[in-house]
Amino acid sequence: MSVRLLSERIADTRAKLESEVDLWVASASASGDAYLLPLSYYWDGATLTMATPATTRTARNLRRAGWARLGLGPTRDVVIVEGPVVEIAVEADDALAEAHARAAGFDARNSPGYVFFQLRPERILAWRNPAEAEAGPIMLNGAWLA
Amino acid sequence: MSVRLLSERIADTRAKLESEVDLWVASASASGDAYLLPLSYYWDGATLTMATPATTRTARNLRRAGWARLGLGPTRDVVIVEGPVVEIAVEADDALAEAHARAAGFDARNSPGYVFFQLRPERILAWRNPAEAEAGPIMLNGAWLA
Repeated sequence: MSVRLLSERIADTRAKLESEVDLWVASASASGDAYLLPLSYYWDGATLTMATPATTRTARNLRRAGWARLGLGPTRDVVIVEGPVVEIAVEADDALAEAHARAAGFDARNSPGYVFFQLRPERILAWRNPAEAEAGPIMLNGAWLA
Repeated sequence: MSVRLLSERIADTRAKLESEVDLWVASASASGDAYLLPLSYYWDGATLTMATPATTRTARNLRRAGWARLGLGPTRDVVIVEGPVVEIAVEADDALAEAHARAAGFDARNSPGYVFFQLRPERILAWRNPAEAEAGPIMLNGAWLA
């Protein structure tokens, strides 16, 4: 596993900040409800600027917190999944642990202190452009809508 | 702007859930501190399973909330940016609005109700593998480390 030099990681990150269009914005309400949405941004070399309606959940959360945590990665093909999540010990279900290891590339049973969190989708959004975003969810109450 | 049929969006989303390796996990503390981290996952056709150390911030937040919001998109080249965020009226700075419009592909001044949120990075993480993740941040206190 090759590790880039710190100077390379910085150069790659600055290039990414300049070349990407979207990022993931995590925010939370005062009562601890997490929210996640991709927004387009502008990077001027020192700050990132995103535009969003003033009354959205993201705007209210960012205004309240005055702090944001953003993730960069291609997001022009967005899928957002929401639902209840349960914690499962990594030793509880070997078939699950093996399937997870094949998918994720590491076996959580060999990773000291690891647990599983398992989410059953209740609501799924999927869009490649604003028109699709406005077309609404593709899953509601755990059921695919087509 | 073409809008896929609902059935196409569902088929594409199921294919994406099957083919992707990582996703973004948004979570929050009881006091409303948002957190964001990519994790690998396993999709069994009905649930997503992620493994993470039981004592991490993500694990504590998910355990408390019992609910998660996940974003899918390629994340094997991760950049996470954190810092203070300020709200700016879209009419306040035309140069900023024009630069944002060029970068983001839409002019927020033409989008009723929009505001800007501007973040000045204080801490940046960048990794392509676990070894790089453990190598620590590439920006601290607003300063690039090389």
